[in-house]
Amino acid sequence: MDLAHVLHMNGDVEEASYANNSLIQQKAISLGTSSRIKAITNLYCAVYPRSFAIAELGCSSGPNTLSVISEVIKVVEKLCQELNHKSPEYKIFLNDLPGNDFNSVFKSLDNFKNKLRDEIETEMGPCYFFGVPGSFYDRIFPNQSLHFVHSSYSLHWLSKVPNGVDNNKSNIYVTNTSPSNVLKAYYEQFHIDFSLFLKYRAQELVEGGCMILTFLGRESDDPLAFGKGSSYGWELLAMALNDMVVEGIIEEEKLNTFNIPNYYPSPSEVKLEVQTEGSFSINQMEVSEIMGADGVYNTNAFDSKSEMYESVAKGTRAIIEPLMIVHFGEGVIDEAFDRFKIILESGISKERTKITNLTITLIRKP
Amino acid sequence: MDLAHVLHMNGDVEEASYANNSLIQQKAISLGTSSRIKAITNLYCAVYPRSFAIAELGCSSGPNTLSVISEVIKVVEKLCQELNHKSPEYKIFLNDLPGNDFNSVFKSLDNFKNKLRDEIETEMGPCYFFGVPGSFYDRIFPNQSLHFVHSSYSLHWLSKVPNGVDNNKSNIYVTNTSPSNVLKAYYEQFHIDFSLFLKYRAQELVEGGCMILTFLGRESDDPLAFGKGSSYGWELLAMALNDMVVEGIIEEEKLNTFNIPNYYPSPSEVKLEVQTEGSFSINQMEVSEIMGADGVYNTNAFDSKSEMYESVAKGTRAIIEPLMIVHFGEGVIDEAFDRFKIILESGISKERTKITNLTITLIRKP
Repeated sequence: MDLAHVLHMNGDVEEASYANNSLIQQKAISLGTSSRIKAITNLYCAVYPRSFAIAELGCSSGPNTLSVISEVIKVVEKLCQELNHKSPEYKIFLNDLPGNDFNSVFKSLDNFKNKLRDEIETEMGPCYFFGVPGSFYDRIFPNQSLHFVHSSYSLHWLSKVPNGVDNNKSNIYVTNTSPSNVLKAYYEQFHIDFSLFLKYRAQELVEGGCMILTFLGRESDDPLAFGKGSSYGWELLAMALNDMVVEGIIEEEKLNTFNIPNYYPSPSEVKLEVQTEGSFSINQMEVSEIMGADGVYNTNAFDSKSEMYESVAKGTRAIIEPLMIVHFGEGVIDEAFDRFKIILESGISKERTKITNLTITLIRKP
Repeated sequence: MDLAHVLHMNGDVEEASYANNSLIQQKAISLGTSSRIKAITNLYCAVYPRSFAIAELGCSSGPNTLSVISEVIKVVEKLCQELNHKSPEYKIFLNDLPGNDFNSVFKSLDNFKNKLRDEIETEMGPCYFFGVPGSFYDRIFPNQSLHFVHSSYSLHWLSKVPNGVDNNKSNIYVTNTSPSNVLKAYYEQFHIDFSLFLKYRAQELVEGGCMILTFLGRESDDPLAFGKGSSYGWELLAMALNDMVVEGIIEEEKLNTFNIPNYYPSPSEVKLEVQTEGSFSINQMEVSEIMGADGVYNTNAFDSKSEMYESVAKGTRAIIEPLMIVHFGEGVIDEAFDRFKIILESGISKERTKITNLTITLIRKP
């Protein structure tokens, strides 16, 4: 499977779309606000760019696509007012894989610009928007063309399912019962991908440029940390799929060869890659936890627990459905997520649904 | 109706898509090859850009979207070989209104790049692609950020239906029976739009930068030149719609208020705008004619005349359907184009189906 051509968050504004099912991602973005304000302020005051180039990598489509962009522009405009500077022009680059629903994003831009102008009140500089289709594990921007790069909830996606995980059998991700070679293969793929990512971004960012990356991770290097949070979600989905194998709805061979191309690194694994690649200094590294089902979802947004679990199931589906359709066929998807929801309802460990986010702020060395 | 949010060529690869119904546009592009090669050669040798920025305005989706881009890159690569230069990096900007099917375009890029690399054989520079949603009657690019701008079959689209054409009644475009104020209103809208277009592109192109524009036009200033070529197509479509009014399928009021936002200027009208705006010198102005139904379509591509007219009807539908749906509702579209096809078949004047193209090559003055 060529992941770069299959992977995308569910598009459009349908019931199962990512746009309608990305609450956790929204929560994660809101957690990072104060760090971002600090980083943008430092960046602006160090570089004073007259043409400010911002990239959102893995922008997806929906309410989260432009939320950080909006924040960045507001911070810069406020600084310009305080410092009595003329506003810069903004070049906004929205990147995702070619299967992303860019059409929806593009149709939303006029409203976004009007809202932004209303909120900012003062005369802001012109904003130019560009869609950039392609994998961030390749070069996607010209040399030294970016000042600020942001990415949220994208970098835990590997460029492909690691080679040599055939013996992961009924698991669909690394669990603490996976054979040791599976964990090793996943780590190796993370190493290859993340080091390439850093190398390419180092070429694309200007000196002093800033990159803030948020992705799912583990708290510690302990392999037992697999099996919590998002990993745990995959364990529950694996349960549903295994039940369907037992009942003959899915072929065993199909399940054995299905593995989720995610890796949730530990802080020290991330640090090691940054230091080895060498182009960036680490300005800040934060580990934060979001409560899963009973945290984000246990708000006033839902009338009942059932509705809440429905939402968790939809959120998971919005992320993984395109890969599952290609692997298992479209026919089993509804069934799989109905079962997933029932498993969720049957009792889910609060402890194990904590989702660990890593946020790293990197500065391009001179 | 906010034209910038409604107008687009039919997307996707469906039967009625623009991608499958843009033969005339393809023919027009192929006619301009030798002028373009000359212009690109001059541009490259005058500017020697190391990062070559090319924009295709009104790129649409389908086989024509990238054909000129491909040609430009091949010409530059050939020049680099001859002059023993290192290949530049290419920045390719694909612009269209936000309703365009950018998703299809983006999904086709990997194949395009692979094919291009195969055809060029030598090691070419990196290509970065950007989708740029927005009306070219606004600023859409940063200052002095482009070297070469191309646009084909887009600039005869006005930014809106002109004001004050209410008395055009059963016509849907300027015909030689339209009241004189209608012709004046269309001309005034062309003047406003085309002068803005030139002003904004002058800001976006580097000095010495080149712009080649092909659009539908008229041979002469004679108002009787309306009623030929594309205008004639609209006359035939108006016949179909008028028949539907008579039969009570469409309300008369609906037809009276429907006007196509196109203008087909004469060479002297175009020259006047360029000279008045003042930023560009005219390097070349060509008037060419394409035979419509019995020219482009009368090739080996069709087994029968009926199939040929079917294709003309589909080509027209791919262009105008989105506007018609908003104005008349979806329910009448099939019927309107069935009738249009029958009118086409009932005898179409060869003389009147000649389509006049204007191609103008402009150089940004220092």
